[in-house]
Amino acid sequence: MPLSPPAQPGQSFAEIETPALVLDLDAFERNLVAMAAFTQAHGIRLRPHAKSHKSPEIALRQIAHGAVGQCCQKVGEAEVLVAGGVGDVLVTNEIVGAAKLDRLARLARSAKIGLCVDHPDGVREAAEAAARNDVTLDVYVEIDVGGRRCGVAPGEGAVRLAEAIARSNTLRFAGIHAYHGSAQHMRSIDERREAIERAGFAARNTVERLSHAGLKCEVVTGAGTGTHELETQSGIWNEIQAGSYIFMDADYARNRQADGTPFRTFEHSLFVLAGVMSKPVPDRAIVDAGHKSAAVDSGMPVPFRREGVIYTKPSDEHGVLTGDPIAMPHRGDSLLLIPGHCDPTVNLHDWYVCVRGLHGPDAHVEALWPVAARGALI
Amino acid sequence: MPLSPPAQPGQSFAEIETPALVLDLDAFERNLVAMAAFTQAHGIRLRPHAKSHKSPEIALRQIAHGAVGQCCQKVGEAEVLVAGGVGDVLVTNEIVGAAKLDRLARLARSAKIGLCVDHPDGVREAAEAAARNDVTLDVYVEIDVGGRRCGVAPGEGAVRLAEAIARSNTLRFAGIHAYHGSAQHMRSIDERREAIERAGFAARNTVERLSHAGLKCEVVTGAGTGTHELETQSGIWNEIQAGSYIFMDADYARNRQADGTPFRTFEHSLFVLAGVMSKPVPDRAIVDAGHKSAAVDSGMPVPFRREGVIYTKPSDEHGVLTGDPIAMPHRGDSLLLIPGHCDPTVNLHDWYVCVRGLHGPDAHVEALWPVAARGALI
Repeated sequence: MPLSPPAQPGQSFAEIETPALVLDLDAFERNLVAMAAFTQAHGIRLRPHAKSHKSPEIALRQIAHGAVGQCCQKVGEAEVLVAGGVGDVLVTNEIVGAAKLDRLARLARSAKIGLCVDHPDGVREAAEAAARNDVTLDVYVEIDVGGRRCGVAPGEGAVRLAEAIARSNTLRFAGIHAYHGSAQHMRSIDERREAIERAGFAARNTVERLSHAGLKCEVVTGAGTGTHELETQSGIWNEIQAGSYIFMDADYARNRQADGTPFRTFEHSLFVLAGVMSKPVPDRAIVDAGHKSAAVDSGMPVPFRREGVIYTKPSDEHGVLTGDPIAMPHRGDSLLLIPGHCDPTVNLHDWYVCVRGLHGPDAHVEALWPVAARGALI
Repeated sequence: MPLSPPAQPGQSFAEIETPALVLDLDAFERNLVAMAAFTQAHGIRLRPHAKSHKSPEIALRQIAHGAVGQCCQKVGEAEVLVAGGVGDVLVTNEIVGAAKLDRLARLARSAKIGLCVDHPDGVREAAEAAARNDVTLDVYVEIDVGGRRCGVAPGEGAVRLAEAIARSNTLRFAGIHAYHGSAQHMRSIDERREAIERAGFAARNTVERLSHAGLKCEVVTGAGTGTHELETQSGIWNEIQAGSYIFMDADYARNRQADGTPFRTFEHSLFVLAGVMSKPVPDRAIVDAGHKSAAVDSGMPVPFRREGVIYTKPSDEHGVLTGDPIAMPHRGDSLLLIPGHCDPTVNLHDWYVCVRGLHGPDAHVEALWPVAARGALI
């Protein structure tokens, strides 16, 4: 049986059932425009990460604002994006296993599809899948630029992989994937700058060695919302993969700019709307949003415009608000929470409740967008 | 478009796509039997919590082993359970708002339905919803026995609520809900015993005051997997709500019994099967299961029977294995992870891949069970 959605288009904001994932369409659209202005001003390609939003509705709006396509992490996400009309998808990840590679290769019949490798077996397996499905795949060599996650060491190892790709009849060497995940949430601009300078050194060195080996590195792709200005300024990367910029979250809001003020290029557009189901004492209110509504891996959700109230002690379906009794909401009230981490929070919900005029008197539900690739794990 | 499931019945264990939520059917069935034996030996009612499993398939097996019905936290979960054939559901939570209460009341046309209240408005609203829908609802007064979450203070406040319930023509005063959530994960038996003794004092006091007011408290319900033996031994509770016992998780495995050894009444039956997608250096392997496959709110997933290997640094779709290079899996290998916390981990997946003979040579997929109430937030 299908689950009830938390709202219907046309309803007023007050009619939304809680908890719900609310998208402030006005702020979201301003974030789209702000990033489009940035990429146009700097002449950099934008390939936003769909792991944040998992929604063709959002992907197509990003592309309408100049994005070249989408990134994602899973074959299942790529399937949802292509089915939703996205024509250019890069899986920024190693894909292991014939079944997944066959699924990915089949997508290449109707879209431009890329993936990453960091091992010779990955090159061979991708080539075989492309051959089996009579397609060509774009392949990027992932280099470890400091994140110590996936990726071959920069330099000669990367060149050998690129040579293997270039030798294949069914693969196209498309460039290098140089993403520094752990730099995204370094709090000071100095830390982030140092991390991206080191990453840039590794990427430039690899591009030069590729060039000496006769291999043109068409695309150097990477960067997230936290560092995208640095990669852009470096002149080394020519494609950025920021995803969270459309939403922002409480953790990104803790990043600091050069002048020490909070990172504020983008606005909070994504919220979990929570309802107060109990208020046993004046300084404690219990909301209906816990671990299954808002991810806490990067810190607690933050009540929006509720000075003096903090969200704490989440359990599966409860969150505890504590703080100033004067500011504390009452039983039956709802309040907006800024998620600690947008990506895994989105993945808990089936629907974006898209609200127009969220903070005004005429706030209403303009649309429901499905989180179409929610749970696309494989 | 529907997402691809990670397996099909009849496949071998090796054919399961990763990451996947794997249920060891043999261990699961032994857990069912172990709890049934406990409840029969002690003459206590078992109403297992469906917030853990979100599956009518599992609910019906629990009921076949003697459970009186199910608990859940959300109206949407109750809808899925009733649609799946469960005839007795208690929502162990305050439900606020006419729309949700109407949905709940409608279920009472075909099942026995209960809910909790901790405020006079909750009594009134539930009575109105029951009247609108021409049904009777069982109502439990939730008392705060130490968890400092929802619940009225034990004693007179609870009596006044029970009196209000009893006065209603459409509600039935069914008992008290006395659940101490934070006691479940206290590590030593002494801590848990002290917490449940205090909770029992509060529950007994409330039952006595209800009795003085002429109100029979038919059911005292509460307890989780971590403390259910204590509530049972107390003689105060006559219904226990354990949910995690069917799965166990890494956090419950950190609880200690009286002799200091790990809590071992139940076996680990629930796993996230993860695949190694990259192994850049001998002492680091990267798996395809991160925050979107395994919840980390109660600690990291623990590799199963992989001595010397730890799971660390999860990101959205990656986890990093570090440790002993000899024990480290290779690219393309898969391994079982014991989730840190079973409930929110289950909620990330669409399917239980039910495996027979999991740890033997003939391990195979016997069934796929949908996580039918996954995402049932409202």
